[in-house]
Amino acid sequence: MARHIGALLGLLVFSTVAQAGDTGLLRQVDAYRLAHEPQIIGQLDELTRIRSIAADRAGLAAAAERLVTALRERGFHARLLTLRPGVPPLVFGELDSPGARRTVVFYAHYDGQPVTPSQWSSDPFGPVMRSAPLSSGGRQIDWRTARPPFDPEWRLFGRAAADDKASIVAFLAAFDALRAAHRPPSVNIKVAWEGEEEAGSPHLEEILRTQRGLLRSDLWLIGDAPVHQSGKAMLYFGARGLVGLEMTLYGPVTALHDGHYGNWAPNPAAMAATLISQMRAPDGHILIPGLADHVRPLTAAERQAIHDLPPVDRQLERQFGIGRPEAAEGLASSLMRPALNIRGISSGHVAAAAANAIPTDAEVSIDFRLVPDQTPEEVRAAVESFLRSKGYTLVTREPGEPTRLAHARIARLQWEAGYPALRSDMSTPAARAVVSAASFAAGAPVAVLPMMGGSVPIYLFSDIFEVPVIGLPIVNYDDNQHAANENLRLQNLWDGIRTYAAMMAALTW
Amino acid sequence: MARHIGALLGLLVFSTVAQAGDTGLLRQVDAYRLAHEPQIIGQLDELTRIRSIAADRAGLAAAAERLVTALRERGFHARLLTLRPGVPPLVFGELDSPGARRTVVFYAHYDGQPVTPSQWSSDPFGPVMRSAPLSSGGRQIDWRTARPPFDPEWRLFGRAAADDKASIVAFLAAFDALRAAHRPPSVNIKVAWEGEEEAGSPHLEEILRTQRGLLRSDLWLIGDAPVHQSGKAMLYFGARGLVGLEMTLYGPVTALHDGHYGNWAPNPAAMAATLISQMRAPDGHILIPGLADHVRPLTAAERQAIHDLPPVDRQLERQFGIGRPEAAEGLASSLMRPALNIRGISSGHVAAAAANAIPTDAEVSIDFRLVPDQTPEEVRAAVESFLRSKGYTLVTREPGEPTRLAHARIARLQWEAGYPALRSDMSTPAARAVVSAASFAAGAPVAVLPMMGGSVPIYLFSDIFEVPVIGLPIVNYDDNQHAANENLRLQNLWDGIRTYAAMMAALTW
Repeated sequence: MARHIGALLGLLVFSTVAQAGDTGLLRQVDAYRLAHEPQIIGQLDELTRIRSIAADRAGLAAAAERLVTALRERGFHARLLTLRPGVPPLVFGELDSPGARRTVVFYAHYDGQPVTPSQWSSDPFGPVMRSAPLSSGGRQIDWRTARPPFDPEWRLFGRAAADDKASIVAFLAAFDALRAAHRPPSVNIKVAWEGEEEAGSPHLEEILRTQRGLLRSDLWLIGDAPVHQSGKAMLYFGARGLVGLEMTLYGPVTALHDGHYGNWAPNPAAMAATLISQMRAPDGHILIPGLADHVRPLTAAERQAIHDLPPVDRQLERQFGIGRPEAAEGLASSLMRPALNIRGISSGHVAAAAANAIPTDAEVSIDFRLVPDQTPEEVRAAVESFLRSKGYTLVTREPGEPTRLAHARIARLQWEAGYPALRSDMSTPAARAVVSAASFAAGAPVAVLPMMGGSVPIYLFSDIFEVPVIGLPIVNYDDNQHAANENLRLQNLWDGIRTYAAMMAALTW
Repeated sequence: MARHIGALLGLLVFSTVAQAGDTGLLRQVDAYRLAHEPQIIGQLDELTRIRSIAADRAGLAAAAERLVTALRERGFHARLLTLRPGVPPLVFGELDSPGARRTVVFYAHYDGQPVTPSQWSSDPFGPVMRSAPLSSGGRQIDWRTARPPFDPEWRLFGRAAADDKASIVAFLAAFDALRAAHRPPSVNIKVAWEGEEEAGSPHLEEILRTQRGLLRSDLWLIGDAPVHQSGKAMLYFGARGLVGLEMTLYGPVTALHDGHYGNWAPNPAAMAATLISQMRAPDGHILIPGLADHVRPLTAAERQAIHDLPPVDRQLERQFGIGRPEAAEGLASSLMRPALNIRGISSGHVAAAAANAIPTDAEVSIDFRLVPDQTPEEVRAAVESFLRSKGYTLVTREPGEPTRLAHARIARLQWEAGYPALRSDMSTPAARAVVSAASFAAGAPVAVLPMMGGSVPIYLFSDIFEVPVIGLPIVNYDDNQHAANENLRLQNLWDGIRTYAAMMAALTW
């Protein structure tokens, strides 16, 4: 049955590749790009130089202003949607196309992850072109004096160059290419470029609800995240949710000589280990009762889509030095489950700093990845109920002496706000049209991921606007996203321009 | 039966208090001390100013020279036993007493723990007198201009002031008091003051074996460790052994986004938690098969001695903010067991530094406390066999890529050398004589601990010389030993002088 549906989906994609647009469109887009490679790279270089990170309010403001200008230069009605001073604005633009029946919002974010410049091989905000990844010995290239067309394996290094400024530049270049070819968009276009995504989108919901009318559309396309690890073009129909937890367990108020007090004074590192082993099986399955009560099963079509993804497990095992994965089910399937990740644990001292002492506390940092229909509130309730069942008294602040003496075991919990997952219907007309247009641009059926393993709060678009929400990644998966030496591979930008052009000029349903 | 033996021991102690020495001795020692308090404190002050810590070779040499001089000033044949350049010398002294049949070696160490001056309230090597512990608001006192006798609750703060320079000063002052009273020692005296105890005594065995003839005696008295937490005078008949282990577990070679790779890429923090929970029960009992195969049971007399210790658990629970101890058996009993202490664990990042990533590795720092007749070698073999049974491949160096890919789970183990425990016979004539003399000095039966929970390599004295080895602590238990603001309470020094005088002048068997 699953295979049958998969085959149908495959047929559907193949049959619509030709219909989605004429190949003349792609030739025109490629020709435009070939004639303008230095200008397009120049746009990405210019945007990357703007320090639009959370720590730099002026940089965020400058990037937003630059983007409004870029949209206005292209005939968009564009402005900044500012909730209140201090909150980075949403860059909004709209352009109606005569005769178009559908409206599409193109989402991306213009803010980048924080940087630790000492970990970078070059200035995060002084973009550098290299011939290859650093790990492959990429040498620096002066692309301004190089003769185009550029080697598509070149990569531009800089914070946010890939995540998401490349998507913004691909959108602009695709628009320019269509205009140069005198091809009007097939849909009305709206733009929503956020400035707080890497800070957890704390004001996105408020902005979206406040501007509900302005942002009304038939489809949201999310220009975030990388393509599939196989390098193949991909669409995603959802993302896991997220909720973070900092948990502190307590031992003695001062570090005690374990020779004189061990086996008697509680060891918080050992307590943490016991709890973790009770919460999470070695294969990653979560053992906390009730936490998975509202996990919605995958549909047959979703299982089939997972099954049809290009195989990448062996390649990734080699790349990451993994002798044996945690679970035997394969990477793609394992990401469809809820997850409890230990992102850090710290107690006492290790190695040269180790002392023969019982630590005073243990800090455990956890992030939960949620799947539909889990909610952060339910996860929180299940975890707290579990901890109480293990004899823990829960507090939210550092416990004082009376609290410590009154309770056998104390856990301090600090929850992050979190948000739920989204896994949207892959069978809507809009979904079929996007798969078709993307496959047309890629020249082959694209990979379809029912839900990304990573988390972005795209449930909001679905919740508030009740229209399809589809992820449209274009950047290389090995882009060092969120790490030092973030980079964009040029071929991904070139392919991305085709994809965006198809979404603007070949999308109909 | 146990209670019967305990009652017999009690009777024995009481009946010998009077026999051990005449109370005139103690009056003379007290009178000498009362007349010389500034001089005695001056000696401790002077010794504490010498920076005899492992990081300061010149300080260690200066302390050793000063002590040889102090012994020679008192008529001892004294010299430095130097193994080779770069190894801190053992300070050796001997003084025969006409007619004495027994020879006693007084051991202590003149080196102190490393210091982190920023954590101290005063210069670790610029001793400061305070009226009380810092936690009780002790105010600074200029003891040089104060009028003796000093308040015995005063404390002298400085590195090694308590651990062990107080024992050395008590020995010297007791000797001076006896000489002033024209009382010849009842035993031949030898002195062995070590300079590497806080560094793990790496050369002690070699020195002892090399100087086996010179150090021959009938008894070793160990002037190290604090008195019982009740404040009561105490002797100990052994100490647990020790072996340390740094264990590193491996995840992916670079930190991976857990949204995209969690539940698939192994999480080393979770692996560490699982292993710890499999190695150690929540009450501290060790679950590693074979590790306790050679644990020698306590004798009835040892159990009785534990039972007879003054109760301190409630007081310590309040002091350390402990709501419920790990084990219900009580502190003293829990220290008679082998222990697996997690002294530290570190993986990924927590709190503000937390990132939603799978850490690359987890470091777990463990110290095992050994009891007779466990050996470090057996502990090591049991741990390694256990880890292999859990599917781990064991390595001693950072694994390279081929190693990582070839094995499902890898643990890097770095073992410290370690040493075994000692629990010596409490019923030998020498043991009875020491209990009797100490009780005489204290004016009441002293507490008798079959084995300290902490570790000192006193098994060496027993192994090499095959004579009784008894611990003779004098310093306050709340001396911040091994931590910042180490301090000595004056009353403990005054009591210690009485105890040392009794060991020199009232010890016969």
